[in-house]
Amino acid sequence: MPPPTAALSVPSSSSPSLFPLSSFSSSNNPHVSSFCPAPTTLPKFPSLSKPKTPLRNLTPLSAVSIEKETLISERPHTFLRDADGGDDGSVRSRFQRMILEAQESVCSALEAVDGAGKFKEDAWTRPGGGGGISRVLQDGAVFEKAGVNISIVYGVMPPEAYRAAKAAADDQKPGPIPFFAAGISSVLHPKNPFAPTLHFNYRYFETDAPKDAPGAPRQWWFGGGTDLTPAYIFEEDVKHFHSIQKKACDKFDPSFYPRFKKWCDDYFYIKHRGERRGLGGIFFDDLNDYDQEMLLSFATECANSVVPAYIPIIEKRKDTPFNESQKAWQQLRRGRYVEFNLVYDRGTTFGLKTGGRIESILVSLPLSARWEYDHKPEEGSEEWKLLDACINPKEWI
Amino acid sequence: MPPPTAALSVPSSSSPSLFPLSSFSSSNNPHVSSFCPAPTTLPKFPSLSKPKTPLRNLTPLSAVSIEKETLISERPHTFLRDADGGDDGSVRSRFQRMILEAQESVCSALEAVDGAGKFKEDAWTRPGGGGGISRVLQDGAVFEKAGVNISIVYGVMPPEAYRAAKAAADDQKPGPIPFFAAGISSVLHPKNPFAPTLHFNYRYFETDAPKDAPGAPRQWWFGGGTDLTPAYIFEEDVKHFHSIQKKACDKFDPSFYPRFKKWCDDYFYIKHRGERRGLGGIFFDDLNDYDQEMLLSFATECANSVVPAYIPIIEKRKDTPFNESQKAWQQLRRGRYVEFNLVYDRGTTFGLKTGGRIESILVSLPLSARWEYDHKPEEGSEEWKLLDACINPKEWI
Repeated sequence: MPPPTAALSVPSSSSPSLFPLSSFSSSNNPHVSSFCPAPTTLPKFPSLSKPKTPLRNLTPLSAVSIEKETLISERPHTFLRDADGGDDGSVRSRFQRMILEAQESVCSALEAVDGAGKFKEDAWTRPGGGGGISRVLQDGAVFEKAGVNISIVYGVMPPEAYRAAKAAADDQKPGPIPFFAAGISSVLHPKNPFAPTLHFNYRYFETDAPKDAPGAPRQWWFGGGTDLTPAYIFEEDVKHFHSIQKKACDKFDPSFYPRFKKWCDDYFYIKHRGERRGLGGIFFDDLNDYDQEMLLSFATECANSVVPAYIPIIEKRKDTPFNESQKAWQQLRRGRYVEFNLVYDRGTTFGLKTGGRIESILVSLPLSARWEYDHKPEEGSEEWKLLDACINPKEWI
Repeated sequence: MPPPTAALSVPSSSSPSLFPLSSFSSSNNPHVSSFCPAPTTLPKFPSLSKPKTPLRNLTPLSAVSIEKETLISERPHTFLRDADGGDDGSVRSRFQRMILEAQESVCSALEAVDGAGKFKEDAWTRPGGGGGISRVLQDGAVFEKAGVNISIVYGVMPPEAYRAAKAAADDQKPGPIPFFAAGISSVLHPKNPFAPTLHFNYRYFETDAPKDAPGAPRQWWFGGGTDLTPAYIFEEDVKHFHSIQKKACDKFDPSFYPRFKKWCDDYFYIKHRGERRGLGGIFFDDLNDYDQEMLLSFATECANSVVPAYIPIIEKRKDTPFNESQKAWQQLRRGRYVEFNLVYDRGTTFGLKTGGRIESILVSLPLSARWEYDHKPEEGSEEWKLLDACINPKEWI
């Protein structure tokens, strides 16, 4: 399949926010229907955007929204619609299975290393199809807050958002474009200032042709990434983390790691500080110019690399003794995490402005954070070294 | 003077952020000159916007910026240009004197009630004129972080920002519009969870006619407000606070308090939470449809009301015993403060995106804040009552 002229991605999913994808509500968007006349069987959904020309510049935020979720007491066997086949061999179905398994294995590994905290699970569905499972461990022995969420969304995007649809004859106004999205998203904040924060997120999208423009091309794409945010640098930890990312990438394409490492440094940039949120990892979006099966395997490999990339670091650092000023520095860096997520992160800002399920979106924020006026680490100190590496991204391997 | 058709206000100043007005830098705005060819004697400045149609929707952010500030070791006698007359009777000059005096009296009162903490002062000027004085008290006995800042800005706005200029003949393209802005801005965060946070901000603007469109009308306007953000409600405190605001308003116009009280409730709204940041106060912007002398007196009265409105509350609550869970609730409410300021506040978001002096803008953030997943206060509890009053604004007097 050739690269499309306008690959699209949901901004929310390229982010550390959890489940903005699946948590939009139309309750405070009275204008939705006039912009986005969704078929009655489909939930309304936030518009999609290209990374370099976000849709919010083109389409009013009020145009996009999705149905309110319903909490359910038991997780279902599948969130896929019957028409998609429960467990057939489709990419949708196999991606759903992959993220459910990844959620299970990551949560198990986290509970094992924490030793005390247990994940609390919230599951929900939406009337039009899809749903999600949110798992949060709060105030454990090792983790102050850890969220690992999956979601499946059936949505529609306004035709204005979809350039391929515009390629239809000018006298033909295409209707809303149905799409499918599935993703896993996670942020893990440990207590110990020497144990780093981790974020990862992997997602898959498909669009259908609009009903009244059957000739418009269908699209699919993958996105995601895993990145590390320590308060202190242990070079062996950062090397280990990046090596695992590189190993996962190299199995598929030697260009992936350098390309996605740079993409990650560029994305998690706190512009007003001139510094990155952390020490990076990999990040990619709109990926569809490779074999679809290959990219499904690649996303699976990346998700499966989370535990080996992160848990050994936590094992090593979770009980390191620390003092108050080291804890305060961690809290200042957590403040930067909050700044990035609330000011820049596409998913968080988009999710908040379109009326998403707040608790799911903001579970990415740390339990606590700190802002001191004009704080400057002493040159040459360990704190200064971390800041320097956030300002000047390094090649770790 | 009749109300202008397009009164303008700097978005930064309608906000709890401190000194975004005076803290913009053109360093990361390479396109400034192509959009905003400022006269060499004038600093570049963020564009102005109307409250209901912010300029950022019309003009690229990269079009607007101001010069980098220079820290100075001693505060000057005046930040006004010589041409403005140092201490003449102009509104510019008298407004500058008023905010300098207000900064002095508020800081003195805060140091007195704190008993231990002292304000640290940073003063700066800009090559093109103007400057500011930032005062921050951190980790005192009573206040964890208190910032009281004043600034004077000489800037230019792109002509696209100024509708009056567009009224010039179509074949005449007006140049940039010079303007003057002065303001005081403050956020005070006490340690004790029963002692409320206070924000106030008062500002004055003038525009000149563009040099090449001398017929375009000149404008002036006032803006500002004072609002209270407690973690717990003491009805007598909130009544006292609002009574002082009403008293200041009633001296000038009986419509002011009800109108500005509602404006405040509407402005400090955390949309994604469906709740206000706190219990309000007064807020107004673009005020010019009254006598100019009357509005100068009104702004002065409001600034002079800060100490009597706030200090008695702090005296009463600063030593109230509290437990860990009450402190945690205060921290959760501080998290909301961060959410409002980083996500919605026009000044903060605008300041961050146009390259402002970060430490001045973000001194409005609390020393520490907290986010718990899905936290819900027990119905009927003191925490629940505060939340209810933030969701459903009350008439306090």
